[in-house]
Amino acid sequence: MALDVLSREKALDLASSIGGSFDAIKVGYPLILAAGLEVVREISAAAPVIADLKVADIPNTNRLICGQALQAGASGLIAHAFPGRDALEVCQMEAQSFGADLFVVIEMSHPGAGQFMAPLAEEMARLAVEVGASGVVAPATRPERIRTIRSIVGEKVIISPGVGAQGGSAAKALEAGADYLIVGRSVVDARNPAAEVEKTIAAMKGR
Amino acid sequence: MALDVLSREKALDLASSIGGSFDAIKVGYPLILAAGLEVVREISAAAPVIADLKVADIPNTNRLICGQALQAGASGLIAHAFPGRDALEVCQMEAQSFGADLFVVIEMSHPGAGQFMAPLAEEMARLAVEVGASGVVAPATRPERIRTIRSIVGEKVIISPGVGAQGGSAAKALEAGADYLIVGRSVVDARNPAAEVEKTIAAMKGR
Repeated sequence: MALDVLSREKALDLASSIGGSFDAIKVGYPLILAAGLEVVREISAAAPVIADLKVADIPNTNRLICGQALQAGASGLIAHAFPGRDALEVCQMEAQSFGADLFVVIEMSHPGAGQFMAPLAEEMARLAVEVGASGVVAPATRPERIRTIRSIVGEKVIISPGVGAQGGSAAKALEAGADYLIVGRSVVDARNPAAEVEKTIAAMKGR
Repeated sequence: MALDVLSREKALDLASSIGGSFDAIKVGYPLILAAGLEVVREISAAAPVIADLKVADIPNTNRLICGQALQAGASGLIAHAFPGRDALEVCQMEAQSFGADLFVVIEMSHPGAGQFMAPLAEEMARLAVEVGASGVVAPATRPERIRTIRSIVGEKVIISPGVGAQGGSAAKALEAGADYLIVGRSVVDARNPAAEVEKTIAAMKGR
């Protein structure tokens, strides 16, 4: 679940009410900036936290960013591949030293991702494998791409955002080879989040 | 000045002691995660703050991240061009609505930046101009590249990191067309930061 909310109270409320239905809770900068990095540890009481920081800086800065997120209790990190091998390697080293997982963004779900990222996705997927990352992030909105990525990353984990508010189909993404789906706004903005979780799980099984 | 420290106390101390010698103070995630986003407002008492968040997410998330940094008092933002036009446009819209400046990363100073980013730098520079950004970020470690970037961005501002600890020459970067230089570790880690500032300014004038 992408815990895409801006208040600590709402985040903790959703984490404790429906967090247990998910394998992990993805937390990004909008919530961390609003609530402080401590919120990661609080949420991790409900489920493992993946810090979706889209880490994309020089190696020294990446090391500091990853280290802080991991010290705050994150079990996983999301980093960009496009700043290159050395930048990604330090993220993996930090993750490894905490026994955490690194997931590498290789494609994204918004239209603009077609401009620079999509043509490099396969090369970035290979880099993710080479640095020893646990997996990659590739959008559910383009299931045909997930199939290609799967052929590159082998047994690595593929996690796929874009289901729900962004229009991706859960069943199609899983069929194409995604291991985990990320649902965000469709659940956290729902009037009845628990009912929306049931609906999403049913859609996944409906493959 | 890149205020690359991890403690609020050290940050505020450096900002008040030497911040006035700089046109702006660049603050990144390592400090913000350690000290909380409020530190941006505190530092802005000494000099305008550029929030170097290397923003690189989908449009909706970029909007939320930029909005929070601007509300916290940032006068400028640094975003990646890599996630494409729509992602960058929302950063510019947010910056504009606060009367702030957007600076777009088009090259970086670490070796890994040669892998995916360098071949796209000119296209990303054109995108920065097209979305109406105030300027671009291009490394002082490759002055010959600054010259090329200048020919693309015209009157836009070029700010250049990589002087000092990363080995870039201040005089050469300015000669190649950089408008502002970013110095970080060489100043903030110095035993006598004020003396190091004087030295850096002398090196700039020595062009």
